[in-house]
Amino acid sequence: MTIQISAFRWVPEMAHGYVKDLRLRWALGEAGLPFEVVLIDHGSGGSYLAWQPFGQVPAYRDDEVEMFETGAILLHLAERSPALAPTEPQGRAQVASWVLAALNSIETFAQVFINGDDGDFAQRMREVLHQRLGQLSEALGDKDWLVGRFSVADIAMVMVLRELVDSGVLARYPRLDALRQRGEARPAFKAALADQLAVFAAHKPGD
Amino acid sequence: MTIQISAFRWVPEMAHGYVKDLRLRWALGEAGLPFEVVLIDHGSGGSYLAWQPFGQVPAYRDDEVEMFETGAILLHLAERSPALAPTEPQGRAQVASWVLAALNSIETFAQVFINGDDGDFAQRMREVLHQRLGQLSEALGDKDWLVGRFSVADIAMVMVLRELVDSGVLARYPRLDALRQRGEARPAFKAALADQLAVFAAHKPGD
Repeated sequence: MTIQISAFRWVPEMAHGYVKDLRLRWALGEAGLPFEVVLIDHGSGGSYLAWQPFGQVPAYRDDEVEMFETGAILLHLAERSPALAPTEPQGRAQVASWVLAALNSIETFAQVFINGDDGDFAQRMREVLHQRLGQLSEALGDKDWLVGRFSVADIAMVMVLRELVDSGVLARYPRLDALRQRGEARPAFKAALADQLAVFAAHKPGD
Repeated sequence: MTIQISAFRWVPEMAHGYVKDLRLRWALGEAGLPFEVVLIDHGSGGSYLAWQPFGQVPAYRDDEVEMFETGAILLHLAERSPALAPTEPQGRAQVASWVLAALNSIETFAQVFINGDDGDFAQRMREVLHQRLGQLSEALGDKDWLVGRFSVADIAMVMVLRELVDSGVLARYPRLDALRQRGEARPAFKAALADQLAVFAAHKPGD
């Protein structure tokens, strides 16, 4: 069977270009793996919950597995395609470490810059984020990509760093902003973004 | 070489029994894999950052790989031991999905109950958490463990659910509280908890 991923038919405009099916569209494009998109309505329950228990996107299936959670799916795709990760054990382990780091050690805090208020809790999370971004910049150093070559770790991290552009935060970390720009310059990213936006344009409410 | 994991020599008492090396101690105990603990000071920088870029614990190394991020390490251990995950592809994919779900779709929001304030942002995150816990309870259903048999997915989820006991939140979800109790009743969990607490007791400041 052709790989299937789920995506929302439409979301409010501020989320266009940020919904997480974009991460899989990009990875699948890099790998040259054909796929179909299963469109669902935001807030879907019912039978969709058997595929994605929280009603979120993306969920994924191929001829062997059915799964959910973007990070888990990125690591699964990395096992399927040498375009998405090194094949030796240490390279794979570092890719997995950085995918989890992007989602757990950076994005959790980055979300506060998009959605947070001025309360003490949000302020403390912003302070942690700045510390982490400084450490991430040090770890990246002069490398083009997190593990030295392009991988799903960069897909995860670039997608998280993109969330920090509008707030002006990312501009304070030139190496990280350059990583983000290298990612966004890749043809597979551009195609994935255009494809997500085309779905929303085609399903605008009221049209 | 023997597996090594890093852990803090000491942390303030409120974190005893919750620092994330506990998750690896538990998994390694379930797998029967011998390991050494490398103790570091909280706030360590310097050469430790080459092993764990954010100065956090745990980091991990074995004879083949060196890595960080608890979720990534749990998935690595699951590949090494049939005690920690099914060996067929669909079972492995579901384990990976649930490990990521515990850390990204539940713990991110659970942390607000421990550290959050009364601001709008924290309140919204609490509402999302309640929705997610309801969905998690539905997905677990009458199963004893998330993928039907014990796996690292349960280690990740039980460790996250434990964080919700003191606030009284977990008691509102009987199936999830029962999952938490089944996890905490396992001998490998009890041994791991005792081992973490023994380290802190032995390194109490001022002793």
